Parts: sequence; structure tokens; C-alpha cells
Amino acid sequence: MSTPDVHISEVGPRDGLQSVKATMPTADKCRWIDALAAAGLREIEVGSFVPARLLPQMADVAEVVRHAVTLPGLTVMALVPNRRGAEAALAAGVHKLTLPVSASEAHSLANVRKTREQMVAELREVVALRNEVAPGVPVEVGLSTAFGCTLQGLVPEDEVIALAVACVDAGVDEVGLSDTTGMANPAQVRRLFTRLRAELGERAGAAHMHNTRGLGLANCLAAYDVGVRAFDSSLGGLGGCPYAPGASGNVVTEDLVFMFEAMGVSTGVDIGQLIAAREPLQAGLPGEPVYGMTPEAGLPKGWPL
Amino acid sequence: MSTPDVHISEVGPRDGLQSVKATMPTADKCRWIDALAAAGLREIEVGSFVPARLLPQMADVAEVVRHAVTLPGLTVMALVPNRRGAEAALAAGVHKLTLPVSASEAHSLANVRKTREQMVAELREVVALRNEVAPGVPVEVGLSTAFGCTLQGLVPEDEVIALAVACVDAGVDEVGLSDTTGMANPAQVRRLFTRLRAELGERAGAAHMHNTRGLGLANCLAAYDVGVRAFDSSLGGLGGCPYAPGASGNVVTEDLVFMFEAMGVSTGVDIGQLIAAREPLQAGLPGEPVYGMTPEAGLPKGWPL
Repeated sequence: MSTPDVHISEVGPRDGLQSVKATMPTADKCRWIDALAAAGLREIEVGSFVPARLLPQMADVAEVVRHAVTLPGLTVMALVPNRRGAEAALAAGVHKLTLPVSASEAHSLANVRKTREQMVAELREVVALRNEVAPGVPVEVGLSTAFGCTLQGLVPEDEVIALAVACVDAGVDEVGLSDTTGMANPAQVRRLFTRLRAELGERAGAAHMHNTRGLGLANCLAAYDVGVRAFDSSLGGLGGCPYAPGASGNVVTEDLVFMFEAMGVSTGVDIGQLIAAREPLQAGLPGEPVYGMTPEAGLPKGWPL
Repeated sequence: MSTPDVHISEVGPRDGLQSVKATMPTADKCRWIDALAAAGLREIEVGSFVPARLLPQMADVAEVVRHAVTLPGLTVMALVPNRRGAEAALAAGVHKLTLPVSASEAHSLANVRKTREQMVAELREVVALRNEVAPGVPVEVGLSTAFGCTLQGLVPEDEVIALAVACVDAGVDEVGLSDTTGMANPAQVRRLFTRLRAELGERAGAAHMHNTRGLGLANCLAAYDVGVRAFDSSLGGLGGCPYAPGASGNVVTEDLVFMFEAMGVSTGVDIGQLIAAREPLQAGLPGEPVYGMTPEAGLPKGWPL
């Protein structure tokens, strides 16, 4: 199997489920992950290792990880907010850790009750743990609110880049940029990812875009144009900002795959099987809205083009 | 007032209304057009001059034109399918004519019951009429199904370009490309508009994109990247393919303006007043769904950025 031109990391089971109210049964989560992997997705963020009392949806995360790691060829990723979470994730057998670090100081305090500096210190501890118990497991950071913050407004680009460098200095393998609030625009995406790649080289990570104001795919295209080849997205656009009716949060995996495949950029994903993976998602979360224009419109006549 | 960086032509009152079932009262159409012009839109396609028995929605088009031409600084455009329509449109006082020519032979036969060659002959007649009675009125063509056709599938790019050249040879002032079926992708948009601009120079016209599979803004960005500075869009995404629930047809003007303004590309449009122009649209078409992520999410904190 040849390497796809772009790497799509599915974040629905973590980022998506984290923002829905109903708890999805463990068996449904596993069936959904099976379907995502069967569609050709090679990396899935399957959950967060956070205290169950804070996020009951993730109470079964270790069990979900133990199932996901049995799927051949799949990189199983989990979000961990700190060393304690990383310990549990590594014990469950994850292949990759991701940590949320806020580019905005205001968001950092609101989200993890730590300053950015304190989060970088936390990163160092997670890296030290990883070096000790699981040296082969990459640690990745997504810089949230990198394109703007609903609490403080603009986030200076110099601060974003300086924080990315600080994360790499702390021993992180990869730093991506997240448009947590749906404020990014294509010109800004090109500027920031160009700078990130110039500063971090191979350690520059994924574009994690939201579709809050409809610019999700345009921003992914802008990132692709300046050399980004890794993208986060969520099946059915699950997650993000459910406060705005119809305004899906994360970029919809189905539409992202459609865009790239239509452009002749291979994703390794079978779009028919990907659309079929909406069934276990909807079965496990009855009544939860799912988004996506491509599944609604269907594939164009003559597909693949 | 300085010239905006991009020219946005609002097509809602024509392309949008053409595909809704309820007939919008004339007074509401006029109030809606007033609000669009007040928001800063400098060109509006206000209706089609087609037989009222075929499209009752457009029975009042002459009256709408006579109102719209009283608005200062506004270019009032109407669609005409043939010489007879052009006569009526010019008599009503339109500033610009637009004709639909299909890039796909199958679509041409289905849509206007004429071959492409017959439509080019029709164009020549419209240009002759214009030269005779209203030499200052530009005639524009939008090549529909330029990026693919639901009837015949792919449309060869060479045929699209050859047809655009034939339209210019027939005396047309401007030829744009329309993604009538929502099949375009950014790579194809860049290829085709690059060729169009190389062949037609100043006569290369607007990008008319649909959002059927969510790629509308990404395709507009792609067109902008290769030098296109004129875009068609529709308030609330009205029109297009209402068969797919949630799948708006035309690119949403509000989201397009948001994208460009956020990028620092001026549109001349006040986005707050643009969002306010949804009110007369909704008042005149009660119950009709309107789309748009930016109006739902609101403008980001700190706007203008």
C-alpha cells in the first residue's frame, strides 16, 4: 500500500464526543472506531484520559484504547492533559499522546487553570515520563486558539510561534495549530503555517480547523498550499461549537476527503466506506445531529473523477 | 470611495428565487434589493426575462428592474435566455445582461433545448440587438456545468475553453465559469481559470461557485489565488440544489464576504448590514430555509480583525 499524499487524523471519538451530552456506549464507540479504520483512516484520536467525574463520556477510555490497539495498522492516539493522564494512557497501550496547549493565556487559564508557562512545564514532565516508560511513543501538541480566542480576541502571531518553539524545546515531537474558535482565515493560515514550518521543520504538525464560519475547507486548502500534509477532522463534523445550530465544529472528514480526492491528492480513505461509518456513529448517539455536505449530496456522477 | 479588491455580484433575486416554490411579492423583492444595495453590493442580478408561464416567480421582473435602477451606484443585471428576453430587459432599463450557456451539450439540450452551437448563434443575435439599441450595456455569459455535469459527468476542459472563446468571438464582453452542479474542486478551478484568463485576458469573468459538497469557499479561494477578482454569490445561499437538505446551493454571500474581509481583501460590503438584509428575504419568503455559517456563529470577538 503506497503512502497517501495527506495524512488525516480522525478526532471524532475524542474531540467530537467530548462536546456531546449523551454518553455513547463503549460497544458503539468500538464499532464506530472499527468502521473508521475499515474506511482507511490510519490515525484515530480515540478519547481523553481525564477524570471521569469531569467528563463521564471518557470514563471507558482505557477499554476503548485496548480495543483500538488490536486493529492492524492503526495509530491509536489519546489526549492527556497532564502526567497523570499520560501514565494511564501509556498503561492502556496508546501509540501516541496529544496535549492541548492554549496559545491564548486567557483560554489557557479558563481551559486547564494553568498559565501557558505552567503547561509547558507539564509537557516536560510528560516527555520525561514517556522517555522513561515508552520511548517509542510520540508526544504531539495542538496549539489551541492559535488563530484567535473568544476570550481575548486576537492572539499575536509572535506569541504563537514562540510557544510552538517552547513546546519543541520541552521535547515534544510535533506541534500543530488549532483553530479552536473558528476565527482563522486562509491568509492567516498560510502566514502562520509558513512560519511554523520555517521554525520547526519536520516537527511542524497538523492543521486542526473548525468550520464555525464555513471556512474550514478553505483553511485546509490554504494550509495544504504552504506544505502542510497532516489534517485533523471529525466524522459528521461532530464536536466543536454546538451552540450555533447548523454550525458544525470540526471540519467534516467526509468533505475533507472529498476535496482532496477530487483534487487528485490521495488520502488513503475510501469515501464510500467513510460515509458508511456514519451509521455506527448515529446508532450510538441517536438524535445527535451530524453534518457533512458530501454525504447529503452524494458523490458526483462519474466518481472517481 | 475606493474600488474594492474583489467584486461580488449578488445573484439571490435571480438564481436564488428561481429555485424556490413560493412566489415572493414584488414589494418584498424591492425591499430586499434595497437592503442588499445598502450593504454595499454594487451589482445585483435582479431577475430573469423568461416567459411568466414558465417561471411565475419572474412575472414582475420588469417592475423589479424599474425599481432597482433608481438605486444610486448599483449595476442592475438580468438573465435573458434569448433575443426576445434581451429586448424586454433592455426596454426595462437593465445595465447589464447575462446569458446562460452550458458547457455540457447534454445540459444545454435539457436546459434550453438548444445545442451549444445554437446558443452561440443566439448570443450573436443578442449582441447585435445590444449594439443597435443599447451599445453601453455589457453582455456577459456564465458557462454553466463548466466543472462537471450531472447528466453527462465530466466536461472536457478543452471544450469549456473552446466554448468560452466562441462566446467572445460572438461579441460577448465577459465569460465566467459556473459550477452549476457543485462538482468543482480547487485544483480544477485553478487550472480552468488560469486557462480562461490566458485565452480571454480582460474578458475572463466571474467564478460562480456552488456549495453542494461544502467546497464553495475553497473553490472561491482557489479562483482568487489565480487572479479572479469577480465572484457570484447568493444571500443565505438561496438557490441551487434544494434537493439536498442542508446542502445550500450557491455560495453564501455572508460567508464569502467574511472570508475575504478576514483575509484583508476588501469587498466594499458592510457585513453587519449584509446580515441585516436577511430580514426582508425571510419576511418575503416565510418558512424558506436560509443558510450561512457566519450569520449563525456571529462575527468573532475583536471584529474587524
